[in-house]
Order: sequence, then structure tokens, then C-alpha cells
Amino acid sequence: MDYKAAFQTAVEQVRKEGRYRVFADLKRHRGAFPRATWTREDGSEREIVVWCSNDYLGQGQNPVVIEAMHAAIDATGTGSGGTRNISGTTHFHVELEHELADLHGKEAALLFTSGYVSNEATLSTLYKILPGLVVFSDELNHASMISGIRNGGGKRHIYRHNDLAHLEELLLAADPDAPKLIAFESVYSMDGDISDIPGTVALAKKYGAMTYIDEVHAIGMYGPRGGGVAERDGMMAEIDIIEATLGKAFGVMGGYIAADAVIVDAIRSYASGFIFTTSLPPALTAGALASVRYLKAHDELRQQHQERAATLKKMMKDAGLPVMESSVSHIVPVMVGDAVHCKMVSDMLLEDHGVYVQPINYPTVPRGTERLRFTPTPFHTDEMMRDLVGALEKLWAHCNIARLGGRAA
Amino acid sequence: MDYKAAFQTAVEQVRKEGRYRVFADLKRHRGAFPRATWTREDGSEREIVVWCSNDYLGQGQNPVVIEAMHAAIDATGTGSGGTRNISGTTHFHVELEHELADLHGKEAALLFTSGYVSNEATLSTLYKILPGLVVFSDELNHASMISGIRNGGGKRHIYRHNDLAHLEELLLAADPDAPKLIAFESVYSMDGDISDIPGTVALAKKYGAMTYIDEVHAIGMYGPRGGGVAERDGMMAEIDIIEATLGKAFGVMGGYIAADAVIVDAIRSYASGFIFTTSLPPALTAGALASVRYLKAHDELRQQHQERAATLKKMMKDAGLPVMESSVSHIVPVMVGDAVHCKMVSDMLLEDHGVYVQPINYPTVPRGTERLRFTPTPFHTDEMMRDLVGALEKLWAHCNIARLGGRAA
Repeated sequence: MDYKAAFQTAVEQVRKEGRYRVFADLKRHRGAFPRATWTREDGSEREIVVWCSNDYLGQGQNPVVIEAMHAAIDATGTGSGGTRNISGTTHFHVELEHELADLHGKEAALLFTSGYVSNEATLSTLYKILPGLVVFSDELNHASMISGIRNGGGKRHIYRHNDLAHLEELLLAADPDAPKLIAFESVYSMDGDISDIPGTVALAKKYGAMTYIDEVHAIGMYGPRGGGVAERDGMMAEIDIIEATLGKAFGVMGGYIAADAVIVDAIRSYASGFIFTTSLPPALTAGALASVRYLKAHDELRQQHQERAATLKKMMKDAGLPVMESSVSHIVPVMVGDAVHCKMVSDMLLEDHGVYVQPINYPTVPRGTERLRFTPTPFHTDEMMRDLVGALEKLWAHCNIARLGGRAA
Repeated sequence: MDYKAAFQTAVEQVRKEGRYRVFADLKRHRGAFPRATWTREDGSEREIVVWCSNDYLGQGQNPVVIEAMHAAIDATGTGSGGTRNISGTTHFHVELEHELADLHGKEAALLFTSGYVSNEATLSTLYKILPGLVVFSDELNHASMISGIRNGGGKRHIYRHNDLAHLEELLLAADPDAPKLIAFESVYSMDGDISDIPGTVALAKKYGAMTYIDEVHAIGMYGPRGGGVAERDGMMAEIDIIEATLGKAFGVMGGYIAADAVIVDAIRSYASGFIFTTSLPPALTAGALASVRYLKAHDELRQQHQERAATLKKMMKDAGLPVMESSVSHIVPVMVGDAVHCKMVSDMLLEDHGVYVQPINYPTVPRGTERLRFTPTPFHTDEMMRDLVGALEKLWAHCNIARLGGRAA
């Protein structure tokens, strides 16, 4: 068996499809976000503007969050030293779980090491706790939700994206006595559209299903306290399990669920991905705690964020660029439609214009829908936007990429 | 469908088996490790000595690591803001991967958000890259390895713990042309025994299998530079994939693999648990980098560590306590053999003696082998050990637990 050849073939396949990923080596500069320094493979450097960060509100640079991390390190040291059960529960973990439960108006919350792990661990464990469970999953759900549902090993049905008629068809066809769960997201991060929470919850009630919502691309950014789209829509109390992240708008790292105390207690007691892993370092939980509290109290940051996204979309539309229809959220995807083209445009933006935006290729999005995905923050200025749109106009002309209504040539 | 009742039943089951986990809420004090403050549920506090941390060498308190974390926060901010591919690769990530490759004498290394994720993501992805793969897995492998192997969805054979004759039997019975992988650990963390790396590698070569070793409970603590048991035994070059953690002896958080560049590149390109998750914050990678470099150069810390473990074992044996036969490693398990008893002893140690050691119950260890697991560090003094052994003696008398050679009454 020639193992090396098998690995080479696997990598070659990715290259052939034009979706081999080269990670941009970045140095951000505290206080200068979204500016950063990019180090090329030859060691030379270039100043750039980051246009694709999920640090949506710039909380990674907020002095309040930074100070909380410093203070926790000085008080307790670096890591937690163990799993949550074996010496890895610090007072910061306990406080943060209370704070997150409060944010969502739930009895309890449970921290995981990432949003990925919270989805994978919770969804796969629900199959253990509810024998015979049938999960109904939106087709554009994140990879971590798909992993959790697959790894659970039970029945699952995929409904067409945001298509509640299709969801109802599937619910109607399922065993009426089987336990059921509808798993969906609020903001879909690659298209920037928002799901119909009241409509989904109504179907859940009609067919006796539980609901599980992923708010990772909404948390901190929607609702008067940043509780997400479910808070904005007044639906938090109607959702059984709310999952979100500390690694995007909150600017740190980690994931969590919020739910009834007994649901949290059961997941806590059975989920392998929760039990058998070192807990988040105290500095991260302290930083997240400060960030959650800050965003609860600063709705003006959310308003600035929406204004910035709307402004960029308008500038792009005015320039005839193929910005996708996602005026409902803060995410600004521009369609390219081809992996090689998408990578090329992104490389030229970086090298020639100091614009850092990653090509979004398969498996993150379906083949043929490759795109650039811009995430303007409250810290992206009008001038940065003008520079960006100017650069895109030049490239779209140069590369013969179709304008609004079309795909890449 | 009464969902609430189903969750209640699941929690009730755990309580009935005496293995309901109550997390101890701890405040560690920088510079005073292993001392900490425990907060009871009623809010009152007690000073305790932590005896069950996986911060094995106290690196979580090392000023070099602390300073590196502070500096990275001041330079770049709090979180990374994205996946490795989408703006989440900082210069610290790149440097740390080089440092870890060097530690293991490999061409490349790849960071994951935890050791759990590195095992789950890598093992499940190997099934995708090597169609028809058969994995041979030691029966005491960690839950994260089991998850990865199960989630891979292919063939697997479990061999009796450290039983190379059984492993050879299974290898011999397998299809000679199928790709094969032997997955095992170096130090088994709950028993404290060490596997036979040269013997396992010899079998792998004889039957054309790849090897995958988990060094999470050895990394930093064995080998002249802390490369693990494979370094100590001169076997690093013979192992195909070495997996370890940044969250135990290195005192921070995160996991990684080290291997040939093409293996790392393939895993990097296909592993869902690597691709679709926010990368480690710069502060953690900077702290880990400092910690790896420090431990490479400070073999005396490893010697002190082994001396402390040997001293505690001797004191326990002299007192007739049922310390398990694991004189080969730094882990000191004391058998109790019953979940309820184990929890009770642990509660009394904490409340009456200020000794914090968690009961290790199912599913972490098989039922009937419940135990206390002590992890002395270079910072545990003779006096702390005398206090601990004195407390155990009192409790063993009080609780009528069998001494050496026996199990709990």
C-alpha cells in the first residue's frame, strides 16, 4: 500500500478543482482594526484592509474585552488545566454561563470549546437522549450541524433552504409519535439571508417538534441586547435550544447552548464532545463575559453595523456589481460562480489593492456558487468602501466577469 | 411527546448510578499553584490544594507563558476573528506549527482547537482519504479517538489494551491489501501505564499499516525536549502521525498533529472539524509557542515531575493505600471500585481536608473501576503529600474501603 500516493492524490484533487487553500499569514494591529499586515510566503510584507473577518463588531479590539483577558491571566494564569469536571471549572465559566442564560431568557447555558463543537456535540447527543428522534434540517445548515446530525446516527430529513412548505410536507409524512427536532439557523452566513423563525416555530408546534436554532452569525448583532434574531423577533421563549458562538461578534472563542435547565443538564451529562475536553481558558471566558455584557448595553454599535452594511451594498449595486440579495443582514456576498476565477480575483485584490477577502469555494458553498463575501464592520470607513468598490470595478472589467444578473465568464 | 420527561429521565439515570457530576467552582491564584479557592454552591469559600489538574508541569503559571499571552493580546487583540482560511491565520499560528513540527522531527504540523477535535477530525478524515481503511484501535483509547473512528464510518477492530499478540491476530485476519492504521496512545491517562511503541511499530511494518499515536498525556513530560514517549524511545521518525495537546503540560489550550507535509496538507484540506471553525486566538498560540520553547530547554522540570510522582506513590504504598500499578508514569490512580463510594470519598476530601481530587467514574473509566486520580506536579511539596496521605488514611479507615489488593467494600 503506497500511503503517500493516496495523500498526494487527495491533495492533487483539491488543486485540480482550483480550491487549494493558501492561508494568508496576518498580523493585526490592536487599535487599527480592520487594518493588518500580510506576510507573503517569501517573507515580504504588505499593509492591507481585512474585509472578511467574522469579528463583526470589532470586539476583538475593544479595550473592555482586552482588559478583562489581561486581568484574568494575572489573577489565575493561562489555561484551565482540565475538563470542566476535573479541575477545569473556574468562577469565570460559572458567571459566563449565567450571563448567557440571561441573554437568551433561558434557565441555563452550557459552554463548549467552539461553536462547531457545540453543534456537533449537542445534536449528536439528542439522538441518544431521545430514542427514535427524527431531525429535520435546512439544506444550508452549517457543516458542524450536519456532522452532529450524521454522527447521531438516526433518522434525518433535509428540507429545501427556508422552504417551510417543504418542511411541512416532511413533518406530515413522518411518524406522528416519533420525537422530532427542527434544526435551522437564523442568519445563513454565506448568503446573508434570514430564516422565518415564527413560521418555523408554528410548524414545530403544529407537529409536536422541538426547535434548535443556530445564531452564530446573529448573536451580538440583532435584538435590543444582542440576543440574536430570535430576540429581535420576540421568539426566544418559543425556541427550545439556542446555540451560538463567542468567536464572532463577541470577539473571543468558544460556543454554547442555552435552554431549559433539564435540557442543559442532560447534554452536560451525556455529550462526549463536552465531557472529554479541556475547558476554555479563564482568560477567554473572562473576555467573553465582558464582551457579552458590553454588547447587551451598546445597541448603537448594532445600528452602526447595519448602516455600514447597507452603505456598502448600495455602493456596489450602484456600480453594477453582482451583490447577492441579502439586504436583510450584515453580510455582503458578491457572486463569481467559478472556483478558479474566484481565487484569482481574490489574489489580485490582495496583491494589487491591499484588499483582503478570501474566495469562498466548495465545500463551504456549493460548486458553481463560488463568491467573495464581505463583512463590513462599524470600523470600515466610507473611504475604505470607495477603495474597495473601485478595485472591484477594475477587476470586473479586467476579468470579464458578468455584472448584475450574471455569473463569471 | 413529553420532551421534558425524556430529558429528566436521562438525568435521573445518571443520578441513580451515582455518577451525577457537580463541577467544583475554582479560583486559582497565579503564583500560588496548586493552591486555589473553592466556592461552594451557597457562595461560601474554602482554600484547597488541587490534586487533579492536567496542568502537569504548572506551565499555566509560568511567567514566560503569561508574558507571551499578554504581549499577543496587546499586539493583536483578543480573538482570531475567523477560520484558518478566512482571516484567522496569524503569524503566531504559522510559527507555532513550525515549532511543533520541529519538536517531533516532522515536516509539518497542523493546529486544531482542541486535542479532542484533532483526534476526531483527523481519524474520521483518514477514512475519506484512504478508501477501505481498516483501523485497529486499543480498547482504552480516549473518547475523542473513538468518536473519530466511529464517525469515519468504516471498518474498525478493537484490540485488548496493550495486547500486541491480540493486535497481531487481528492484523493477520484482515485483508492484506486494505489500507490499515494502528491507533494508540503513549501514556494512558486513567491507568498511567505506557504502551510498547517499538513493538507496535514493528507490527505495523510487518503488516503494512500506518501508525497514529496520541501523546496528550506525555507531551512536554517525556523525551529530552519534551517530544513525548516516542521521543524518549527514539521512535518519532517511525510513527506516521503524532497527535498531542497544548492544553495539558503546555498549560494553554488546543491540539495538533505532526506528520509528513503531504499528510498534513491532505487533512488540512478535507477535515470538517479543522476547516469550519474559528481558529485559536493569537494569545493562545503565542502562549503555547513560548511554552513549547521553554519545555524544550528545561529538562530539569521533567525530572522534578517524575521525582514528585515517585515520592507520592511510595508514600501511598507505605501507607497501604491501593495505588494502581503505574510506576512507569507520572499519574497516580488510587482504586475505589464503586461510583457512589468514589464520589463520597472525594466530597469528604474536599470539605474536610481541602484536598481537591475528582472522582473518576463511568464513562471516563469502565464501571467497577471507579478511582481517584492524583497528578502531582513539581509544585506539590512533601508537606502537601503528607497531608494528602494522612487524609486518605483517615477516610479509608472511616469508609471501610479495602487496602492494597482489594476494592471498595
